[in-house]
Amino acid sequence: MIKIGPSLMCADLGRLIDNIQQLDRADVDFYHFDIMDGSFVPNITLGPDLIRALRPYTDKPFDVHLMVEEPEKFIDLIAGAGADMISVHTESKVHLQRALQQIRGHGLKAGAALNPSTPLCMLDYVMDSLDYICLMTVNPGFAGQKFIPSTLGKIKDLKKKIDQADCADIAIEVDGNISNAIIPEVVAGGADMLVCGTSSIFIPGQSLGHSVAQVKQLISHV
Amino acid sequence: MIKIGPSLMCADLGRLIDNIQQLDRADVDFYHFDIMDGSFVPNITLGPDLIRALRPYTDKPFDVHLMVEEPEKFIDLIAGAGADMISVHTESKVHLQRALQQIRGHGLKAGAALNPSTPLCMLDYVMDSLDYICLMTVNPGFAGQKFIPSTLGKIKDLKKKIDQADCADIAIEVDGNISNAIIPEVVAGGADMLVCGTSSIFIPGQSLGHSVAQVKQLISHV
Amino acid sequence: MIKIGPSLMCADLGRLIDNIQQLDRADVDFYHFDIMDGSFVPNITLGPDLIRALRPYTDKPFDVHLMVEEPEKFIDLIAGAGADMISVHTESKVHLQRALQQIRGHGLKAGAALNPSTPLCMLDYVMDSLDYICLMTVNPGFAGQKFIPSTLGKIKDLKKKIDQADCADIAIEVDGNISNAIIPEVVAGGADMLVCGTSSIFIPGQSLGHSVAQVKQLISHV
Amino acid sequence: MIKIGPSLMCADLGRLIDNIQQLDRADVDFYHFDIMDGSFVPNITLGPDLIRALRPYTDKPFDVHLMVEEPEKFIDLIAGAGADMISVHTESKVHLQRALQQIRGHGLKAGAALNPSTPLCMLDYVMDSLDYICLMTVNPGFAGQKFIPSTLGKIKDLKKKIDQADCADIAIEVDGNISNAIIPEVVAGGADMLVCGTSSIFIPGQSLGHSVAQVKQLISHV
Amino acid sequence: MIKIGPSLMCADLGRLIDNIQQLDRADVDFYHFDIMDGSFVPNITLGPDLIRALRPYTDKPFDVHLMVEEPEKFIDLIAGAGADMISVHTESKVHLQRALQQIRGHGLKAGAALNPSTPLCMLDYVMDSLDYICLMTVNPGFAGQKFIPSTLGKIKDLKKKIDQADCADIAIEVDGNISNAIIPEVVAGGADMLVCGTSSIFIPGQSLGHSVAQVKQLISHV
Amino acid sequence: MIKIGPSLMCADLGRLIDNIQQLDRADVDFYHFDIMDGSFVPNITLGPDLIRALRPYTDKPFDVHLMVEEPEKFIDLIAGAGADMISVHTESKVHLQRALQQIRGHGLKAGAALNPSTPLCMLDYVMDSLDYICLMTVNPGFAGQKFIPSTLGKIKDLKKKIDQADCADIAIEVDGNISNAIIPEVVAGGADMLVCGTSSIFIPGQSLGHSVAQVKQLISHV
Repeated sequence: MIKIGPSLMCADLGRLIDNIQQLDRADVDFYHFDIMDGSFVPNITLGPDLIRALRPYTDKPFDVHLMVEEPEKFIDLIAGAGADMISVHTESKVHLQRALQQIRGHGLKAGAALNPSTPLCMLDYVMDSLDYICLMTVNPGFAGQKFIPSTLGKIKDLKKKIDQADCADIAIEVDGNISNAIIPEVVAGGADMLVCGTSSIFIPGQSLGHSVAQVKQLISHV
Repeated sequence: MIKIGPSLMCADLGRLIDNIQQLDRADVDFYHFDIMDGSFVPNITLGPDLIRALRPYTDKPFDVHLMVEEPEKFIDLIAGAGADMISVHTESKVHLQRALQQIRGHGLKAGAALNPSTPLCMLDYVMDSLDYICLMTVNPGFAGQKFIPSTLGKIKDLKKKIDQADCADIAIEVDGNISNAIIPEVVAGGADMLVCGTSSIFIPGQSLGHSVAQVKQLISHV
Repeated sequence: MIKIGPSLMCADLGRLIDNIQQLDRADVDFYHFDIMDGSFVPNITLGPDLIRALRPYTDKPFDVHLMVEEPEKFIDLIAGAGADMISVHTESKVHLQRALQQIRGHGLKAGAALNPSTPLCMLDYVMDSLDYICLMTVNPGFAGQKFIPSTLGKIKDLKKKIDQADCADIAIEVDGNISNAIIPEVVAGGADMLVCGTSSIFIPGQSLGHSVAQVKQLISHV
Repeated sequence: MIKIGPSLMCADLGRLIDNIQQLDRADVDFYHFDIMDGSFVPNITLGPDLIRALRPYTDKPFDVHLMVEEPEKFIDLIAGAGADMISVHTESKVHLQRALQQIRGHGLKAGAALNPSTPLCMLDYVMDSLDYICLMTVNPGFAGQKFIPSTLGKIKDLKKKIDQADCADIAIEVDGNISNAIIPEVVAGGADMLVCGTSSIFIPGQSLGHSVAQVKQLISHV
Repeated sequence: MIKIGPSLMCADLGRLIDNIQQLDRADVDFYHFDIMDGSFVPNITLGPDLIRALRPYTDKPFDVHLMVEEPEKFIDLIAGAGADMISVHTESKVHLQRALQQIRGHGLKAGAALNPSTPLCMLDYVMDSLDYICLMTVNPGFAGQKFIPSTLGKIKDLKKKIDQADCADIAIEVDGNISNAIIPEVVAGGADMLVCGTSSIFIPGQSLGHSVAQVKQLISHV
Repeated sequence: MIKIGPSLMCADLGRLIDNIQQLDRADVDFYHFDIMDGSFVPNITLGPDLIRALRPYTDKPFDVHLMVEEPEKFIDLIAGAGADMISVHTESKVHLQRALQQIRGHGLKAGAALNPSTPLCMLDYVMDSLDYICLMTVNPGFAGQKFIPSTLGKIKDLKKKIDQADCADIAIEVDGNISNAIIPEVVAGGADMLVCGTSSIFIPGQSLGHSVAQVKQLISHV
């Protein structure tokens, strides 16, 4: 089952509870939060207090994507704020295996996130510590960028790598301009979790419920 | 006139527009935004997208406090998002005079922010480049900390310094657990702008309008 | 066609225009500039002002090699100074795909530079964003170091990788003690662009014209 | 011959000479020193002065493991303090090939150390510059952690890589909770040098001589 | 009463318990530990494990001097290892008031350490948070440096500052080549705690007991 | 005697020897070199190789201004390249007293450089280690900026500080848009050394000799 996760950094930041309630009614699968530190990526968005503030308003899993230089510093704080899944970037200053264990130590799902240019060999010796892998399909930092076509092949390569490692339970998450146009392709390529932003769910002048329904229909046809 | 500025990091982060509308009706004077990078301070809160999202809902000035390692990297972004005032920390990696000019170059008011332990001599040669000075009265990074008593004397010292420099138009902003109990003292000491958080305006079970009215009354009696 | 690019950090730094005029007459193919920040490499050499100052004196392409911690900060500045090609190091703090797009966004050729120890898999998912790859054949930072023999095999491996990826238009540049003795070998291995310094072109007591002619002859015999 | 190297950070830090004398009598093969900088790993242990202080008390080789951000800054100091072998982490800020040459330039054996999550391709182009490879079998920073099972496969992969590269003289060192229980497995997998700490040699209530004998017996049975 | 504190980085690092037992018999007042990170100062010495290992062997206070970039990261670890006093450098990346409170929060004495060039105004707003001030009289990082004469005047200036602030209970500690020749001067200047290293207590060929007695006599004559 | 020092980063970078020969004939007093690392200031200019290349062409002192994060790393390199005077920034990551001693240890004159916003108290305890103080009168990093008026008062304050400290041999150097218009004022204020760039000496369409003569005349009239 392909899962749909709205990226809350693309939601109406002044009415987040309202947005979550609409999205819950439309039955999305999880919520995606991007934590940025202005150094690993050139932007800052939201933090643990916002996660904590929204936690009471939905039962869906919160998936937190740490786009920060030193993710190990934030894992406890983010876990305490209500995350269900946390991913850390392999390119950051991190002891990757330790960070993944630290996340699982909180009883959460542990993910590794990869920038578009990062090779898959970076995951060679952590496959058994991973619940999901977040493939960036744009360079992280801002909403509204163009999908990078070469990442399509990377999704397929990762699917193969997961199969070869006999780790079928590792989910592939794709993040970055996952538009209605590209959804069929990334799903066909092997994506399991879609992070949905301004090009599929948060579309000006269109209800969130309608947008989610559209994405669901696209997925059902693959 | 003493000015009241609710700190939006202490507001209901899931209903910010609603909070702003209530605070506008209660006639606060400005809104205070804390931008953190997880490095200059050990937390991350909100960023330029949130400022941009709220900008259409009020005419009050937006005062943005950059608690980041390299504030010069963010000034253009923050100015573009709708700030009216920006303060940078003297303790950060900054060419302070350049940053202040950069802020004024956008037509905004420029401030310097000082941690509780930072001496006032750090301002000796930028008094003519300053519109306001933000004195931290707690160590920055989290809401809900204890007011540091020695900062009361610092407010008075700063008042004297401003008078001696013949710069009466520099406002003194105080930030950090500015509770109803301490407001009379900081105002008596010389504070012009009060950043108000969980100990004066955002009090569980009390309406924002009522809280603001209480602060206004406290000020009127000093 | 193998291209010859004198490394200007090895030229007579007090008479650069004169050197360029001699090299132009000898019909070199491009000029190579090394920008160092004293942190990514333990030296500092030259910057954008020097590039701008020399730009009017030749029509040959300027190839700028960014040996800096955060290359994205410099790309716009270097492009504005007159570069035609810019390469960034995969080992630096960089969103590699974004940096390459940023370079191409200025209409310039984009390159990735690799230290001697860096594996070629780092390029797996940026092959379609590359115009050239700069293989360091010494550890970057200083002129006059010894060519590292194992890099010969790396040139051949890269040639194979380019062929397999069906990206025949990616040029291989070699940089670091590319002496007359080694030129035949690196060319045979697959190098397309030779960065030439103190061991081939800038040889004390020998005219630049004579040196370039010698290199051209060496190449013609491979 | 499998070599046994007590990790001195696990010894009785108040009686190091005494410990070394006991270990010398038990005929260990080398001593392992962990230098930490509190940044590459979240701990600080010992430094060059301690190495220098112990140097006169044994003829066994001193193997120094640099768990620091910028190992090149420390190599000369550590060599001067009496090291015989130095390893640097591929994940640190290092020009790896240069660092290895710098170590060999002092007449010492040069090693690369890899965190549990680091892929072996990082060594592709430095095999000819290496005397040994230190595979971390826990995440570095503290004694007393759990052995990471997936590193067993990594030892075998590295053994294969060394054979394929025809570099049979590169020793495989394993470091991190190398307990009596795991020693037979890591040796069977291909380990040549065992860094021994609190789970094999420094066991409360057991003499160092007895502990070493036990390890030797375990090895002899593989 | 002037207090004498041997600097254990200058002791016999292979026989620290033995050294402490001798020094205890000679009735020194405290032990001084220098924690270095190789970044704030260009050396690395010892860490929390060593402090923990020595803690059972004496009842004298342990004074730990954090010469590290980010002291707040280490305070809990050092407190847990058995420190009684911790000082942090004002020049490091620190929220000074927060760090001092963090130290006192563990029930320990809190100190600020100043490099020779650092002005005393850095302490203007933390006098009420300080139990002692460590004035470096050499540049920190290595034993055996020359005492910097201008620090004598600084001791006197600090004494005056403490008197003016009505904080008579703040002790002045001096650290750096506090030799027998200079002890009378620093004591006359106002020093309360002497960190004693290779120029007063750890003198080759002289018993620790004799050295301490000599220092005590010097002090008694001031 | 007021000294004139052309800033070579403003010279014709393609013909530096020629420029130096003209300036020598016009009898300037010293040459000023700005070394930038792209981190302490947002630009990179020139390095030790350029200093070494120009050294043989003049007997005038070379004054090197280190605008870098970690000046101590560069002092030996710069001294070896032919500097006669080196200044380091008090705002950089530096043990200031050590750096000044390191410079004097090479037999060179040691200077401290201060950004426009930096207070003079930063020099309180290094006055005896200083040969000159470089007051920035623009924010460092680029040529062609506007002179900051408040720095005029700072020159006078520094003059007073030097007199009070009885250190009459410390020279005051001013650096940053020292134009013909401002020269009389800075000299009247107490400046001893003028760093001259695009607003006094390197003026398009005017000979260097003529420019220098003009500056000399301006000085003679103060």
